[in-house]
Amino acid sequence: MSKRVGSQTVKFDTKPKIIKTVSIVGPKEGDGPLKDYFDIILDDDMNGEKSFEKAESSMLYNVITEVIKKAKLAEKDIDFLFAGDLLNQLSSSSFAARELEIPFYGLFGACSTMTESLSIAAMAIEGQFAEHVIAATSSHFSSAERQFRYPLEFGSQRKPNSQWTVTGAGAMLLAKNGSFPCITYATTGKVKDYGVSSPDSMGEAMAPAAVDTIKQHFKDTGRKPSDYDLIATGDLGRVGKQITQELLKKEYGYDISSIYMDCGEKIYDCEKQNTNSGGSGCGCSAVVDCGYIYKNMLKGKYKKVLIVSTGALLSTTSNLQGESIPGIAHAVSIEFGGDKNA
Amino acid sequence: MSKRVGSQTVKFDTKPKIIKTVSIVGPKEGDGPLKDYFDIILDDDMNGEKSFEKAESSMLYNVITEVIKKAKLAEKDIDFLFAGDLLNQLSSSSFAARELEIPFYGLFGACSTMTESLSIAAMAIEGQFAEHVIAATSSHFSSAERQFRYPLEFGSQRKPNSQWTVTGAGAMLLAKNGSFPCITYATTGKVKDYGVSSPDSMGEAMAPAAVDTIKQHFKDTGRKPSDYDLIATGDLGRVGKQITQELLKKEYGYDISSIYMDCGEKIYDCEKQNTNSGGSGCGCSAVVDCGYIYKNMLKGKYKKVLIVSTGALLSTTSNLQGESIPGIAHAVSIEFGGDKNA
Repeated sequence: MSKRVGSQTVKFDTKPKIIKTVSIVGPKEGDGPLKDYFDIILDDDMNGEKSFEKAESSMLYNVITEVIKKAKLAEKDIDFLFAGDLLNQLSSSSFAARELEIPFYGLFGACSTMTESLSIAAMAIEGQFAEHVIAATSSHFSSAERQFRYPLEFGSQRKPNSQWTVTGAGAMLLAKNGSFPCITYATTGKVKDYGVSSPDSMGEAMAPAAVDTIKQHFKDTGRKPSDYDLIATGDLGRVGKQITQELLKKEYGYDISSIYMDCGEKIYDCEKQNTNSGGSGCGCSAVVDCGYIYKNMLKGKYKKVLIVSTGALLSTTSNLQGESIPGIAHAVSIEFGGDKNA
Repeated sequence: MSKRVGSQTVKFDTKPKIIKTVSIVGPKEGDGPLKDYFDIILDDDMNGEKSFEKAESSMLYNVITEVIKKAKLAEKDIDFLFAGDLLNQLSSSSFAARELEIPFYGLFGACSTMTESLSIAAMAIEGQFAEHVIAATSSHFSSAERQFRYPLEFGSQRKPNSQWTVTGAGAMLLAKNGSFPCITYATTGKVKDYGVSSPDSMGEAMAPAAVDTIKQHFKDTGRKPSDYDLIATGDLGRVGKQITQELLKKEYGYDISSIYMDCGEKIYDCEKQNTNSGGSGCGCSAVVDCGYIYKNMLKGKYKKVLIVSTGALLSTTSNLQGESIPGIAHAVSIEFGGDKNA
């Protein structure tokens, strides 16, 4: 029997469980409002490595090995690692995977990678292709800045709507059984491009994709905003969050304002920490989902959450060739305890 | 019941079918020994576009839309598109997906992407998450050269063991039913790095991963080389092919020589076409699998085939930072007709 509901959503009958998560962040994130929720806060964002790229990769390696340890498992117990990052040719993930004896599939969804990897990981469990699977992703402010924008030494001025790439990595370990937050639905996004072309306007570029996927999730599942006690987009920042909220209401009549947060807005004190519109990067939704959201689900604060990581699928080449920025968003419904538990 | 056999292999009980394939290649590939097997041969590798990157993306778009047409389906019938390519941030795939109304997951496995996307696509069908799925990938000589090596205008001399990135794209459309070549096993690779560091030595860098995955496939499934009438690695070229064949025999006692081909060696007349060790790129195994292998399976020439696309997971940054080249390989067993059909 098909596990498909509507046109873009998979329903998980066996409700794959997220049995453990681990998050690691850099000093700036560790100084922000969510600092109490991260597992590891680095004093030095180089993490003992000689380059920003190697630092990012080592952080990803850290969360993967830590989440295995936390679940009292060994590398050999993990059937698949689904991971990706922002660096060209996923070098953060590829080099982390090189140190691990785990079958590996690299994924790229830009900053949507946390829910992309989580969706596919959940399918691997639901389909009985695996007993234990890890979904993971990372980003690093300094490796992203020099790859996508300017060398740090250049000291470029940041635009008011720009975002700050999160230095962080998150890993989720999934299994079939146990009393843990479980995955009930995954809605896979389509690529949406409304013509935004400035790499300083990521939130604006990704908002239409977030709107499209959230709308489709409600349509496919028959749910409505009030069925959730939290909807968390990936890294739209303050500007993209505002657009998403308004478009969902204006175009489709869904008012999510009372239960809506954006991981990019939440992770920094944007005024004090000078992050303008907020955080971004694969690591942004990863560490907020693995830290703040997952831990609050365990505590019972949130019972039914829709996480929607959002990605801007540009490259520096596409941008220089005058292309606008395609966006994508994938939504995953996570539930734990209480009446709202499916 | 678990569909896992051994430590790295998934067994597909429902045997997802590859109902149609489409391949497109550039003029050089269309002039090579496999020219009769490709669906579309371009006169001009720009494909009417203004940049190499846009040309590559348009080729990927072409094979995706053509394979849908060939199967007499519409975009709305396709539940997932799994696609990836070599370009930074998968811009070929992302921009092709932008033109399509299909839920999209981007994958990166460098030149292993054809069997990565095919493995995950088969899981989507087997798990009943989808009715129709497309697995696709592309590469382009000119976009790869300038991204990974030198500007074409520089006219660099090519080393004897260097490979030539295939200009081509391939798409496979999978469904549950029908009398078509079917997928019986997928063996997911681990990252292997034996310290090769020259980007001119891709075949050498990827060979250990191919060896590891093929060996593991035999161990997990209990099969042996003689169970197959063809084993086709992705794009190891002549040098990597030789290493793979020798290592499999020497280290593990598997003699595959009589049924072994490499897509990179096969796609060009290496002497006449000056491609040195042979073809490479995601498009290499994609067009040979979609063209030569699939069509020969339909004709009954091959009944049981193991395709093993191979990827070199380097980036220009990792290379400049002195890193060696991690390799990966994923194997998919395809069967059709005859006694050897499972």
